[in-house]
Amino acid sequence: MTARIVDGTGMAAAIRETLKPRAAAFAAEHGRPPGLGIILIGEDPASEIYVRNKLRSAAEAGLRADLERLPATATLADVLASVHRLNESDVHDGILVQSPLGPSLGAEAEQVVFDAIDPRKDVDGFHPVNVGRLVQKRPALVPGTPLGVVEILERSGVPIAGRRAVVIGRSDIVGKPVAMLLLHRDATVTICHSKTPDLAATAATADILVAAIGRAGFVTAAFVKPGAAVVDVGITRVTDPAIVARMFPPGSARHADFERRGTLVVGDVHPEVADVAGLLTPVPGGVGPLTVAMLLSNVLRAAEGGRRKA
Amino acid sequence: MTARIVDGTGMAAAIRETLKPRAAAFAAEHGRPPGLGIILIGEDPASEIYVRNKLRSAAEAGLRADLERLPATATLADVLASVHRLNESDVHDGILVQSPLGPSLGAEAEQVVFDAIDPRKDVDGFHPVNVGRLVQKRPALVPGTPLGVVEILERSGVPIAGRRAVVIGRSDIVGKPVAMLLLHRDATVTICHSKTPDLAATAATADILVAAIGRAGFVTAAFVKPGAAVVDVGITRVTDPAIVARMFPPGSARHADFERRGTLVVGDVHPEVADVAGLLTPVPGGVGPLTVAMLLSNVLRAAEGGRRKA
Repeated sequence: MTARIVDGTGMAAAIRETLKPRAAAFAAEHGRPPGLGIILIGEDPASEIYVRNKLRSAAEAGLRADLERLPATATLADVLASVHRLNESDVHDGILVQSPLGPSLGAEAEQVVFDAIDPRKDVDGFHPVNVGRLVQKRPALVPGTPLGVVEILERSGVPIAGRRAVVIGRSDIVGKPVAMLLLHRDATVTICHSKTPDLAATAATADILVAAIGRAGFVTAAFVKPGAAVVDVGITRVTDPAIVARMFPPGSARHADFERRGTLVVGDVHPEVADVAGLLTPVPGGVGPLTVAMLLSNVLRAAEGGRRKA
Repeated sequence: MTARIVDGTGMAAAIRETLKPRAAAFAAEHGRPPGLGIILIGEDPASEIYVRNKLRSAAEAGLRADLERLPATATLADVLASVHRLNESDVHDGILVQSPLGPSLGAEAEQVVFDAIDPRKDVDGFHPVNVGRLVQKRPALVPGTPLGVVEILERSGVPIAGRRAVVIGRSDIVGKPVAMLLLHRDATVTICHSKTPDLAATAATADILVAAIGRAGFVTAAFVKPGAAVVDVGITRVTDPAIVARMFPPGSARHADFERRGTLVVGDVHPEVADVAGLLTPVPGGVGPLTVAMLLSNVLRAAEGGRRKA
């Protein structure tokens, strides 16, 4: 068995195409495009890349996206002031504060900031009102990554209802919301985590396996039932040659990449899983592009929702 | 193997005892006891019993509890007006609207009413903010029944961390919140439901089995791993002699009860499970009394939380 490899980049482009006419229709009716306001604190290199990617994708989909930069020295009050301005803005339908907020604000600041975002504009879906509404199966803004996981399964024709899904990882951003989305689509869902004994055996019962644990190559063939759909949410930047060699043998293209750059972005799923799974999402080029596409979809949804209520 | 049978009534009384000194301390500091406002619409006989039970238990724990009755003809605006009055009340720390609201208000009314309750006073834990905060593992008001399930396990010395828990049922009131509570205590949690194929086999992998599906005697010995802790959340009033006979043979005490009254309150778990399980909660006298005790605990928590914030 050799798994069908999902083209996340192509899927994301297809989704952006479906957003364009909706964005154009909104602009025609309201005299402005749907708008996203991004707050970026400091100059974290990874955050810079993520934000640039969101800005470019938004533009490609016909959305307005504005970046508000705050210095790394910004106080919590500064960040909240920016959030409040965007809450009141007539041209921004969605707001996101790029995570992590940075070391100077303290560990508690993140949720304080997310709580301050108007839930109707909370396109990252981190506000408790949106989390609660998701659990209650009511209309909600749901984080882009779990939405992307489900979008991949549905666009790939993987049946969900009546199937057994195992989610490895219980984060607020991926594990728990993806479990809810799969449950609401009538999967029988098991949530595993670092305290799960015999994780491989449990994972190997899954028709749908979602790996969101953040450990490079952790999910090996022993975790996978033949023919299962495996969605790899992990994104880890590896610099340890031993880890790379364990995943990609010397001589392989990915190993050569690593030797050239000294670093490699890998997923939670070991490449050997491609020989067992029926479907597999690659890293990079799998869930990642979908995450951004679903974020943009959330901006449109927030814009259109505002219109419905107005 | 004969299961240890949990004494939910005794446990609930013990919990009420722990609430008394807290209620007294609150009263000494604030010049009033913690207060619960209950809104009851119409005259549904089951609701009358539940409400009477809550009022009596509140009094036993040293709480004030007021019942506001609305006629079955009450409009949504009438109910919301009562909720708003209690939201503003200085003597009511907790509010609950007895469910079901009644046929005249329509199916959508329930969540509209629950959404209107101040989340800080939402002692039933149905507001999306409380649902979201529970999922986010933040301080929250959580529904009494799932809290009662966990309380029973903990008071019975059943280990949760690292164990496999299976929840049958995915309701907002029991299934989903109990899954979250068990997950946050490091169980590996599977949520099953009516669309789960081979439910018995999945249930039989559980160290902790929570039955919350509302089908009389549905969980038979085949669903239970020897020695498992089985918590029966189901409460069904049965009038069909065939169902009673399937659970309690003619000649048994419960069957005689049924013949006398023409009705019997039974759980989701078949009595034969007592021969397989290590621990079993009975119906009645298991989770039910805990549900009310945890509701009262929520009133105290809401009162004390208000004090902390003030």
